[in-house]
Amino acid sequence: MHPNSLAQINTPALVVDVAKVTSNVERMAARLRQHQVGLRPHVKTAKCEAAAALMTQGQSGGIAVSTVAEAEFFFALGYRDITYAVGIAAGKLARLAELVARGARVAVLIDHADQVDMVGRAAVAAGIGLDVLIEIDCDGRRAGLSPTSSELVRVASAVSQRVGARLAGVLTHAGGSYACATTPDIVAMARRECEAAVEAATRLRAAGLAVSTVSVGSTPTALFGDAYAGVTEVRAGVYVFFDLVMANLGVCRIEDIALSVLCTVIGHQRDRNWLITDAGWTALSRDRGTREQPVDYGYGLVCDLRGEVVDDDLVVLSTSQEHGIVGPRSGAQLDLARFPIGSHLRVLPNHACATAAAHDGYHVVDGVDLRVTAYWERCRGW
Amino acid sequence: MHPNSLAQINTPALVVDVAKVTSNVERMAARLRQHQVGLRPHVKTAKCEAAAALMTQGQSGGIAVSTVAEAEFFFALGYRDITYAVGIAAGKLARLAELVARGARVAVLIDHADQVDMVGRAAVAAGIGLDVLIEIDCDGRRAGLSPTSSELVRVASAVSQRVGARLAGVLTHAGGSYACATTPDIVAMARRECEAAVEAATRLRAAGLAVSTVSVGSTPTALFGDAYAGVTEVRAGVYVFFDLVMANLGVCRIEDIALSVLCTVIGHQRDRNWLITDAGWTALSRDRGTREQPVDYGYGLVCDLRGEVVDDDLVVLSTSQEHGIVGPRSGAQLDLARFPIGSHLRVLPNHACATAAAHDGYHVVDGVDLRVTAYWERCRGW
Repeated sequence: MHPNSLAQINTPALVVDVAKVTSNVERMAARLRQHQVGLRPHVKTAKCEAAAALMTQGQSGGIAVSTVAEAEFFFALGYRDITYAVGIAAGKLARLAELVARGARVAVLIDHADQVDMVGRAAVAAGIGLDVLIEIDCDGRRAGLSPTSSELVRVASAVSQRVGARLAGVLTHAGGSYACATTPDIVAMARRECEAAVEAATRLRAAGLAVSTVSVGSTPTALFGDAYAGVTEVRAGVYVFFDLVMANLGVCRIEDIALSVLCTVIGHQRDRNWLITDAGWTALSRDRGTREQPVDYGYGLVCDLRGEVVDDDLVVLSTSQEHGIVGPRSGAQLDLARFPIGSHLRVLPNHACATAAAHDGYHVVDGVDLRVTAYWERCRGW
Repeated sequence: MHPNSLAQINTPALVVDVAKVTSNVERMAARLRQHQVGLRPHVKTAKCEAAAALMTQGQSGGIAVSTVAEAEFFFALGYRDITYAVGIAAGKLARLAELVARGARVAVLIDHADQVDMVGRAAVAAGIGLDVLIEIDCDGRRAGLSPTSSELVRVASAVSQRVGARLAGVLTHAGGSYACATTPDIVAMARRECEAAVEAATRLRAAGLAVSTVSVGSTPTALFGDAYAGVTEVRAGVYVFFDLVMANLGVCRIEDIALSVLCTVIGHQRDRNWLITDAGWTALSRDRGTREQPVDYGYGLVCDLRGEVVDDDLVVLSTSQEHGIVGPRSGAQLDLARFPIGSHLRVLPNHACATAAAHDGYHVVDGVDLRVTAYWERCRGW
């Protein structure tokens, strides 16, 4: 699985630069240390052992996961403090309860009274206890109860009274930060995220309920938040790799992006000012996250084999299943002689989570050195 | 791997209705039989043994593949006539040559003089012969040489003179048929596809070159083409499942779509007129193929557990990694009581190839019967 050089790898293939991962992870850790708030890395972006080890270094060791399969995968690697940060469904509880029976603390997320009974029944059936977090909606974009909702205290009280369930606290996620236009907007969103969680915790405590966890987070808000009073932990995930969406938000630089898709030039269409590669949407994903952003990178920004941006104009204009059509965004003349048939390119992704999800694992390099030093396998499925 | 009922399956999960697959496959076979032209099914959509068996039933047994991994997977299942229908890269030839050494006929696709030498060298190194098809561009949308290009005869002559390479013929794909607005447009595109391939074959023959294969195809053109003189085979793939893009093109009915993603309702957002499921983009893909079509189905059209459309207004409005937000396209009032927390839904995909690629296999049902009768594993990777 470890050919000597990137140039020998079967394409398309996912490449990760461990030097960039290390620096991205250190930046997040330093930022939250400065604000004296804990970090619970979300492992859903990388879904692999080595990246999780770097992300949790110097932290409490708790992680957030997005699937039961991740919970099982990271439990097998020794992780014992796991928050399953997606609203719970009954069919998933038996597998999570099994992890608790084997020694894990697992917290599940709910925002509806019907879920309380589900959790209690599964926990009692397994003879264990499940921590429960109440999901709070801070930006109106997905799930959760409003911090001012009349349901909030009712649902949390039901949890605290249900055998098998233990009210752990509240959790919110400012997914809306991905749509912020400016850094001050991200800072404001980070404040709103914390305020929503703290307000919910305060209301629950006022109702006599114990709240130990007040969890917030998204990569943009985690990197720009400046007021964490009352918050116990921050969750973030995509910062491990960063991507073009994050670069467009001003959250990272293009050169911080640690993930790319290695591909081979398989065609030239001189009349159309294109080259064609073997990285289509199966390798890049169909994610068009930069479509509405300041710079639309199509399906990705093109780098050379060493991972250096060729020219900020050269992008993947379109994809089919196993073809990527590459050309200049501006329509400038493309010098095809620079990209001979059979040469290699690397494509930076719009959305690291989606591109990584299209692959079984990562070919690891360290900086611009082309030697492949490791293969990191990803957790798959649900 | 075969729980008794769909309602017991871990969600999200990919479901295929074998009754619909059978009828879709029979429709295509009958159509091409009527036009007395051969069918070479493209296995890139389904990538599984059982679907390929249905698609090749009554045909010559030849298949088209989109990755070397598919070539190897189907070779291991007994397929011996394989066209790798993506422009060839040097790094892929050794694995294909190995299949030839073990008894397969493998045809590779080229559209550039530099690829001739690549193919010849790999074939000679392996002591085998590779069939070569020249890719023809019939719609200006991707790869291939124009049928009138001066390069065409030059590249084909080089193939015919290169030891290890055998000129098999020409191949074209009218991917542009996906953008047709009306059925007459598809019929016209089908004619253009055939004319381009036949014109290229005629020019090569006039130059004294032997052309045995004249290959065309896409699902829309294969179902509406009416003139196949000079064409030896039609390739098509997505018809095995169909999808919302094809329904919007008028190529199939919604009720012909054989593929869906089973999911669980995990939340209600009454104020926003949404329900939330556990099928996000990891399960549905980020494909937004219906975005520019007559009906924009968001990330998919919602069916009940039996696979029947709830209401042609109810779609997946947006997705995040493990969340699908479901609501009415029209903004009409959603009756959440019809979709309790924990209940199941099935989502029809925009693009079957992309949605299927997000999963390791299919849970098979037969019509509206909820019993799961089999699990069909998919070929993965490259």
